[in-house]
Amino acid sequence: MSLKIAVCQLRTELEQDVTLAKAGSMVKEAAQSGADMVALPEMFNCPYSSGFFRKIASLGHEKTVAAMSRWARENSVILIGGSIPEVDGERIYNTSFVFDRNGQQIARHRKVHLFDVDLPGMRFKESDTFTPGEDITVFDTEYGKMGLAICFDVRFPELFRAMAKRGAQIIFLPAQFNMTTGPAHWDLQLRCRAVDNECFFVAATAARYEGFDYECWGHSMIIDPYGTKLADCDEKEQIIYADVDLERIAQVRAQLPTFLHLRSELYPVAE
Amino acid sequence: MSLKIAVCQLRTELEQDVTLAKAGSMVKEAAQSGADMVALPEMFNCPYSSGFFRKIASLGHEKTVAAMSRWARENSVILIGGSIPEVDGERIYNTSFVFDRNGQQIARHRKVHLFDVDLPGMRFKESDTFTPGEDITVFDTEYGKMGLAICFDVRFPELFRAMAKRGAQIIFLPAQFNMTTGPAHWDLQLRCRAVDNECFFVAATAARYEGFDYECWGHSMIIDPYGTKLADCDEKEQIIYADVDLERIAQVRAQLPTFLHLRSELYPVAE
Repeated sequence: MSLKIAVCQLRTELEQDVTLAKAGSMVKEAAQSGADMVALPEMFNCPYSSGFFRKIASLGHEKTVAAMSRWARENSVILIGGSIPEVDGERIYNTSFVFDRNGQQIARHRKVHLFDVDLPGMRFKESDTFTPGEDITVFDTEYGKMGLAICFDVRFPELFRAMAKRGAQIIFLPAQFNMTTGPAHWDLQLRCRAVDNECFFVAATAARYEGFDYECWGHSMIIDPYGTKLADCDEKEQIIYADVDLERIAQVRAQLPTFLHLRSELYPVAE
Repeated sequence: MSLKIAVCQLRTELEQDVTLAKAGSMVKEAAQSGADMVALPEMFNCPYSSGFFRKIASLGHEKTVAAMSRWARENSVILIGGSIPEVDGERIYNTSFVFDRNGQQIARHRKVHLFDVDLPGMRFKESDTFTPGEDITVFDTEYGKMGLAICFDVRFPELFRAMAKRGAQIIFLPAQFNMTTGPAHWDLQLRCRAVDNECFFVAATAARYEGFDYECWGHSMIIDPYGTKLADCDEKEQIIYADVDLERIAQVRAQLPTFLHLRSELYPVAE
């Protein structure tokens, strides 16, 4: 079974309404180019900084969720809605919502591993704002099961094994690596998770906002189950596409049958 | 605590005695250059083909084990003895032996995941000859705990997590990727295992034997806990060195504290 995937690598603007208008246009363009599934970046409606997280959260998430539902329905695409600040009582989550072609919400992933780092030149503590999620996210679509995680989640191979073992054929990762972690680990960790689990991998990141205090690395990409990049890009705002044949998963798993070799009697393997 | 690591990327010759003489010389050269730990490649005494596996196994492994013990003692190095065909009754294992500075054997890893693949241009079935090992291997040294796995084992992130959780600070991987899997996955999987577990990683592969039916990819490397290559090389016979400061492990784990973020209540994590 084949489908076309698009990633909208948009630059998040300081005004939410400006960003939403642009995101809607990009989803429409992707659909007009034949995309079946369209992915947006992490925190696509909110500049990536602790101050903005609280400000955008104070507006509530309902408006953005309604907009995403409408974009999916009007363009008849499955929309992986990047992530946004989701408000739940006193708590705020870094959450990705997914919608089917009718605009129905079919999945929700709350980022499980929050980005708390203290690297030279890159100090950040997402847990100052956000509460971590409590669920591994695999969801059904007309193309079968898909997985969903967010950014820092990619550093935990066990989470990706769990999604693959639960049937995820394509794993989506809205993300925003930066100018420190991006050159060091972005390409490496994305491609290795694809190869570890012999599944497709779609990393959707924001475009770089030059001069903003968190400069995003960019470089969204779509990767096949052998680790080959099917589409990638630089740091600028753009849409990338790849035609994906899901049969490739079974082919790679037959050629290099790592799932058959797993030794769950020696080490724990997710089920 | 600091130490110097050497990898002897030697080309395995068709005659075992010729290879052993060369390996002994390379270990001596590495020691004279100040190496504390010296690593040899997978199947360093045996050309990598099913016919040779049985032929070299028929000679027994005792001679090579005695030679390795002597090289360690005479040069006062800790020797990660690549791997060799180990005979145990009717069974043959792809086994790495490790010796301390006195020539005492201090560890043995039998390859846990055998190389059975059917890729375009690369069909191989190690399990025609070998029996898989049954143990995860972490061993004590004067520098603390170290991990040990062999080649195809690298494709299984759970095994590396298990070694890291058991205290491995440096993980050694004697290996022989080839001209198909090498360009696709060698660098990727080595560096990602180092980053996943924020430990040092030493991949010791054979030099390429042009024209032999299994052409090895080469490219031995020593990687730090951030995924940075401290030393690497091309496909030719050579010795590479790196000075390793084990304090770097704690530093990276403080800067990017993935071990603290593991969510073992959501997915199984090795202990």
